[in-house]
Amino acid sequence: MTYFSNIDKIKFEGAKSTNPYAFKFYNPTEVIGGKTMEEYLRFGVAYWHTFTEDLSDPFGAGTAIRPWDKFSGMDLAKARVEAAFEFFEKLGVPYFCFHDVDIAPEGDSLKETYENLDTIVAMIKDYMKDSKTKLLWNTANNFSNPRFVHGAASSSSADVFAYSAAKVKKGLEIGKELGAENYVFWGGREGYETLLNTDMKLEMDNLGRFFHMAVDYAKEIGFDAQFLIEPKPKEPTSHQYDFDVASGYAFLQHYGLQDHFKFNIEANHATLAGHTFEHELHYARIHGMLGSVDANQGHPLLGWDTDEFPTDLYSSILAMYEIIKNGGLGRGGLNFDAKVRRGSFAPEDLFEAHIAGMDSFAVGLKVAQQLIDDKVMDGVIENRYQSFTEGIGKEIVAGNMDLKKLEDHALGLTEIKHESGKLERIKATINQYLLRAYAGE
Amino acid sequence: MTYFSNIDKIKFEGAKSTNPYAFKFYNPTEVIGGKTMEEYLRFGVAYWHTFTEDLSDPFGAGTAIRPWDKFSGMDLAKARVEAAFEFFEKLGVPYFCFHDVDIAPEGDSLKETYENLDTIVAMIKDYMKDSKTKLLWNTANNFSNPRFVHGAASSSSADVFAYSAAKVKKGLEIGKELGAENYVFWGGREGYETLLNTDMKLEMDNLGRFFHMAVDYAKEIGFDAQFLIEPKPKEPTSHQYDFDVASGYAFLQHYGLQDHFKFNIEANHATLAGHTFEHELHYARIHGMLGSVDANQGHPLLGWDTDEFPTDLYSSILAMYEIIKNGGLGRGGLNFDAKVRRGSFAPEDLFEAHIAGMDSFAVGLKVAQQLIDDKVMDGVIENRYQSFTEGIGKEIVAGNMDLKKLEDHALGLTEIKHESGKLERIKATINQYLLRAYAGE
Amino acid sequence: MTYFSNIDKIKFEGAKSTNPYAFKFYNPTEVIGGKTMEEYLRFGVAYWHTFTEDLSDPFGAGTAIRPWDKFSGMDLAKARVEAAFEFFEKLGVPYFCFHDVDIAPEGDSLKETYENLDTIVAMIKDYMKDSKTKLLWNTANNFSNPRFVHGAASSSSADVFAYSAAKVKKGLEIGKELGAENYVFWGGREGYETLLNTDMKLEMDNLGRFFHMAVDYAKEIGFDAQFLIEPKPKEPTSHQYDFDVASGYAFLQHYGLQDHFKFNIEANHATLAGHTFEHELHYARIHGMLGSVDANQGHPLLGWDTDEFPTDLYSSILAMYEIIKNGGLGRGGLNFDAKVRRGSFAPEDLFEAHIAGMDSFAVGLKVAQQLIDDKVMDGVIENRYQSFTEGIGKEIVAGNMDLKKLEDHALGLTEIKHESGKLERIKATINQYLLRAYAGE
Amino acid sequence: MTYFSNIDKIKFEGAKSTNPYAFKFYNPTEVIGGKTMEEYLRFGVAYWHTFTEDLSDPFGAGTAIRPWDKFSGMDLAKARVEAAFEFFEKLGVPYFCFHDVDIAPEGDSLKETYENLDTIVAMIKDYMKDSKTKLLWNTANNFSNPRFVHGAASSSSADVFAYSAAKVKKGLEIGKELGAENYVFWGGREGYETLLNTDMKLEMDNLGRFFHMAVDYAKEIGFDAQFLIEPKPKEPTSHQYDFDVASGYAFLQHYGLQDHFKFNIEANHATLAGHTFEHELHYARIHGMLGSVDANQGHPLLGWDTDEFPTDLYSSILAMYEIIKNGGLGRGGLNFDAKVRRGSFAPEDLFEAHIAGMDSFAVGLKVAQQLIDDKVMDGVIENRYQSFTEGIGKEIVAGNMDLKKLEDHALGLTEIKHESGKLERIKATINQYLLRAYAGE
Repeated sequence: MTYFSNIDKIKFEGAKSTNPYAFKFYNPTEVIGGKTMEEYLRFGVAYWHTFTEDLSDPFGAGTAIRPWDKFSGMDLAKARVEAAFEFFEKLGVPYFCFHDVDIAPEGDSLKETYENLDTIVAMIKDYMKDSKTKLLWNTANNFSNPRFVHGAASSSSADVFAYSAAKVKKGLEIGKELGAENYVFWGGREGYETLLNTDMKLEMDNLGRFFHMAVDYAKEIGFDAQFLIEPKPKEPTSHQYDFDVASGYAFLQHYGLQDHFKFNIEANHATLAGHTFEHELHYARIHGMLGSVDANQGHPLLGWDTDEFPTDLYSSILAMYEIIKNGGLGRGGLNFDAKVRRGSFAPEDLFEAHIAGMDSFAVGLKVAQQLIDDKVMDGVIENRYQSFTEGIGKEIVAGNMDLKKLEDHALGLTEIKHESGKLERIKATINQYLLRAYAGE
Repeated sequence: MTYFSNIDKIKFEGAKSTNPYAFKFYNPTEVIGGKTMEEYLRFGVAYWHTFTEDLSDPFGAGTAIRPWDKFSGMDLAKARVEAAFEFFEKLGVPYFCFHDVDIAPEGDSLKETYENLDTIVAMIKDYMKDSKTKLLWNTANNFSNPRFVHGAASSSSADVFAYSAAKVKKGLEIGKELGAENYVFWGGREGYETLLNTDMKLEMDNLGRFFHMAVDYAKEIGFDAQFLIEPKPKEPTSHQYDFDVASGYAFLQHYGLQDHFKFNIEANHATLAGHTFEHELHYARIHGMLGSVDANQGHPLLGWDTDEFPTDLYSSILAMYEIIKNGGLGRGGLNFDAKVRRGSFAPEDLFEAHIAGMDSFAVGLKVAQQLIDDKVMDGVIENRYQSFTEGIGKEIVAGNMDLKKLEDHALGLTEIKHESGKLERIKATINQYLLRAYAGE
Repeated sequence: MTYFSNIDKIKFEGAKSTNPYAFKFYNPTEVIGGKTMEEYLRFGVAYWHTFTEDLSDPFGAGTAIRPWDKFSGMDLAKARVEAAFEFFEKLGVPYFCFHDVDIAPEGDSLKETYENLDTIVAMIKDYMKDSKTKLLWNTANNFSNPRFVHGAASSSSADVFAYSAAKVKKGLEIGKELGAENYVFWGGREGYETLLNTDMKLEMDNLGRFFHMAVDYAKEIGFDAQFLIEPKPKEPTSHQYDFDVASGYAFLQHYGLQDHFKFNIEANHATLAGHTFEHELHYARIHGMLGSVDANQGHPLLGWDTDEFPTDLYSSILAMYEIIKNGGLGRGGLNFDAKVRRGSFAPEDLFEAHIAGMDSFAVGLKVAQQLIDDKVMDGVIENRYQSFTEGIGKEIVAGNMDLKKLEDHALGLTEIKHESGKLERIKATINQYLLRAYAGE
Repeated sequence: MTYFSNIDKIKFEGAKSTNPYAFKFYNPTEVIGGKTMEEYLRFGVAYWHTFTEDLSDPFGAGTAIRPWDKFSGMDLAKARVEAAFEFFEKLGVPYFCFHDVDIAPEGDSLKETYENLDTIVAMIKDYMKDSKTKLLWNTANNFSNPRFVHGAASSSSADVFAYSAAKVKKGLEIGKELGAENYVFWGGREGYETLLNTDMKLEMDNLGRFFHMAVDYAKEIGFDAQFLIEPKPKEPTSHQYDFDVASGYAFLQHYGLQDHFKFNIEANHATLAGHTFEHELHYARIHGMLGSVDANQGHPLLGWDTDEFPTDLYSSILAMYEIIKNGGLGRGGLNFDAKVRRGSFAPEDLFEAHIAGMDSFAVGLKVAQQLIDDKVMDGVIENRYQSFTEGIGKEIVAGNMDLKKLEDHALGLTEIKHESGKLERIKATINQYLLRAYAGE
């Protein structure tokens, strides 16, 4: 059956195309910085937002109109798989991602849930044989079911801890079965509603234990995916233990897990934590911890996770700048953890939204590479920090200084000269690079 | 000379006093939880907000009327010392804190700055002989002078790094000279305005080097104060490297500094980072990193550091709850990093504001101790987490579990029972404890 | 049938009661400021949060355990009515409030929806005969159904405008039938997701037309309830036309509606708009527009509508201060637009939460009345503004001044004396009033 | 004397210029939508940020290096005038704006202040004879001096009210003398620190009286400038009476001032109030109240007024979209109420920053006009609201409907069809327009 019969395979048709279902800037085979766009960008479709999401919100029922709405139960799960692979193929996207509950309904027992998963995983595996689309990562949804009301691995109930462990074990097995390149942990309920009834130390210790068990089991079964922590500061909880990359890194170091995990960084989670997207990417990068990216954007004036498709080119440029500087994302990718707006309920919007996002990152890649090639920011930085490449600055970096030697130097200083940081000029230059990216110059 | 001639020594006069300059709830000799209030609360006066601050803001000149306004230069610095010790004595406060530039003006050269400092430090030392007020901590202001425009220890200029080091060296010597119990680092310019011209890795590495040098020098001169990092997320920079306690802890672990530092936690900095005050205290406490407290409060609807005197009793109760659980603050204290409002410009307001803050923490201590004695929250927590004290939960905590054993357990579960978290009841109970603290029951 | 069989009628049992289901501070017959607490506080139970809410959130399914969960359809609606009146009676609350969809399920057609409503309204009317609990207000839910995806009275579809009008017409008839004292408009979808596809002028004009039609129809059927606008800045939309009281007042004046409406002010909506609760109450009061109150509270660090039960006594004191100054709420009341936390899923929590809220406002009333009686704030204000009661200030207020006369006065001034605003002292005094409210002094 | 001797007159040198002091996109004589860019954009330089600002912040002293730093007192004021007109000429900007205190220092008495102003105003008038740069608006700074600690027109002191009136009277006279096209009121202290000591009704009434007196005096002296209110929600106060455009409009209507004022809308003030810049412009426009613009931008993650130069092209496109729809700004203009960053302290940065801002609005104008010409958004809107141009929708708009007729219509509806809002596609289209603006297609 065909779910998107009115939409042809999306092709790059060049800048002049008027076909709404065509990329304007993304050309998978175009080479930037020595790689094709497809190799660099490693786009992924999020199963939950694209095939499971109904566009409900806290104040209203779902509005999404989907060709598979007529099915239910396992039939619905199967219809979604069919639709998904049709979607992947038409969009021409190399990866997808899912939570366990996205692909198969929970059963009345854990055993039945496993059986449902096995059925759908087999079906997905079958579809993957004929598809170029691979599994970027999978994960266990340990937050939606009411059993996780008080947390999952950080639950106040040992039974829930065990249940969560079972779901992750199954998730690791599914990841191995489907050849996932990464395995993600997002702890939607791993945090607290209030400190007043919470044993935070026990909860964090248990979370540390849980991650060690997952590392051990993956090793045991020979599943060599990159493990990823996904920071988010709050929502649904009041405070989540993986608040941001820095606090996640504190956690990983404290529990001796830093060699086993990297970060899956989401733009909207960054801004909710009070950081720019590029800050989180940069912090992870310079600590060797940048794993993968959830490509979306938030609304700067709204205080919750809006998970919008990424269309802000400033953000995609600066994100790609960090990714290029990182030498690419390795096994990670750019997963569109983004949903169409509640008012964009038509099936076509799913295509238009993904194209909008993919085009934005294609522009981001192109402009960022040009900024790097021309040393726009690097030149400024080399100049600003030059004093650390010679004289006393070189000695500081080499670790040869102490407070007394530095005091001697300081007492001998007559004037300290500063250079302007020139931020306004840098911003104007970025605008010029952006506007001329497609000017054929 | 007398600076506060219209104000007598503040005494605890009990609940019925109508004297505005009398404590209503703070009684230094009252014993709570085995210690006197004075021993527990270890209040400190912030020299900068009380004796140097002029109540200017970004949109207007200072409004403060101070008896020492008629002086200038070193005479002003000396008048402030006199006024300070008169203030400490009348208020009956055991500690004070200062930055170098609060107590003495900067000279035309570093050498002259040192001389100014030496003069005033000698004067302070002399006054301390006849005073019961001790130095809780001192610090170097490495942010106000234009030379720190691009940072101090994280400056893009090696000369500024050296200058900052000299100031910290002098600060450590002053701390030793005056018997400071702690030494604080607040990095007002240690962060960035923009990533676009910043070498964040070099800056953080330099910051790490800088802290190691400070640790080494304190050891060298035999200054055994507790070193404290003071997190703040932003302002004046767009991003400060010590964003919050968790990111500070990530930094300390990464650079091998975690055994040499604890945290000086400020209420208003916590809320600017998106955390409650008690969260930051709690996180530091369970990681063994709670050092000292900057007692103030922010305005929940304003996005900058308002440094208000702490009068919210909910906040003082929950802060004291953490401090009691920590076994007190050790060498740390409750420093009022708080300023009177711009409209509260009279000298009397300095007394009224400190009394308001000290009374608030006295109430906080009393109510928190009663909540602990009656196991109001502890009882709820013991009950909620009981499953980790027996059976499989006990095995999880003991480290005897793996994913397979946990899956076996989970597959055997029929129903998972949860208890209500009862947050509304806990909040109502806290209100009852608050309202009856002084009801003589 | 009995839904809350384990809970006896809640009674005021005095401050020493250890029964968790007893008021500690609320005593309906206690007289404060010449009225009984019950007359002053006019508490209302929100049907939606108490009988319809399942405690789901955007990341998880509902957790609420309710005795009526076993029913469905109209049987569920009827069971909820039975449970509601049992709840009202046991709690001893004088009012309740509902949206149409809270009390009866929508049918397959508008006609069937009407029939469902008629059935339940008749049942409610019957129950009200034997109950002291009255209807504070009702309203139409014109936001949850997918038909309102693009708005209701401000929809881009004329059919939806008509459908919304029909629902409000029915709501007005139901209000009249049940003797509602007010009728509320909350425009959850009356705003925009984006300006990019919105005709804001047409939408606002239509909203104005809609309100005029409602006013006309209420007059036609002789329904004399007070009409109320409920401001909220955002969520679910990105911008709601009734952003806050001031913007609602701009709207009402612009469309000539200011004599027909007052405001229903919600604490959490105030804080989401960047205002304190008391600010919104005060602004409405001094413009003669304070109608009713949705008593809840938000979480100051979370950016969405948390609808918590109000337990912050500072907030309840300052809210009651405004309400007393307003001479009470007239036909309005204190409706608990509040839900128990997701973790507080037991039926008992519904009682504990309402008691927590009612006790908080009882304390608020008592302390606010004492602050007014003792002129704590009024005395400060009289003193601060004294210059407007004499001389040139009196002439300014009388409208006898112009810029030239004022310039003459200003040129003759030598010094302008200011008094301290004494905010710190006022806050300390409020703490003293709070702590001694129950000290028997 | 020459203050910017190293900088030549800025000329439009076309897209390929590598001269940093040249416009890349702004071409004053280029015609867009029937007007030249210069006529449309009406740029203004803010005297305070460019000639008076020292780049201090709450945590540090000023860093700005200015050629006129060597002067003081009236000599400094005169040097700034010389520098200003040199700057205007080299930049080629048609307007400037100032507060009284920007151009001349306050004297020891109001009379002396007047004399200082008279001297500088005469000098400015003289310079204006030989300059094409005109005065967009002037205003009185009634917020920086400590006398305004408790407000200006809303002060608790009648003397301060009179003093403020005198300064506004002088400001109106100066505006007339220099041919100002507008007169602005920004009430930096017209609001409250706390409601606890504030008589908000008296303060707002006085503010209303004050504005009426200003209107009357302008009429008396024949000064026909457009009067402008400048909304800002908070900072320096906790709440400012002109919170946003909507609340300002409520105020103007309530006091019968709506025919005498329009709004001066600042981008950063909009975002601090929780609105987008374009929202504030749009709201003002559809109410006929859009007067002028303070062109800057805020930092979406910082909670205070950062007054950055506007470089975000999305924002400049959407702002120009509203301005074009408004038929231009009439007597208003685009005043750069923006300051270079603290780290951009060199004189050259003043040029680079203004060029960055002017180029951004030039791009904004060009792209916005193309979006309008091609009906990108208008086409979507016409389609979405089509139902209000026929049938029952047309009757609604014509005012021929009531609730009963609408109910009849609604009862007859079988299905309500909605169209997708297509936001993702619209955003992608805007990106395409932006990227191709300079692609020569």
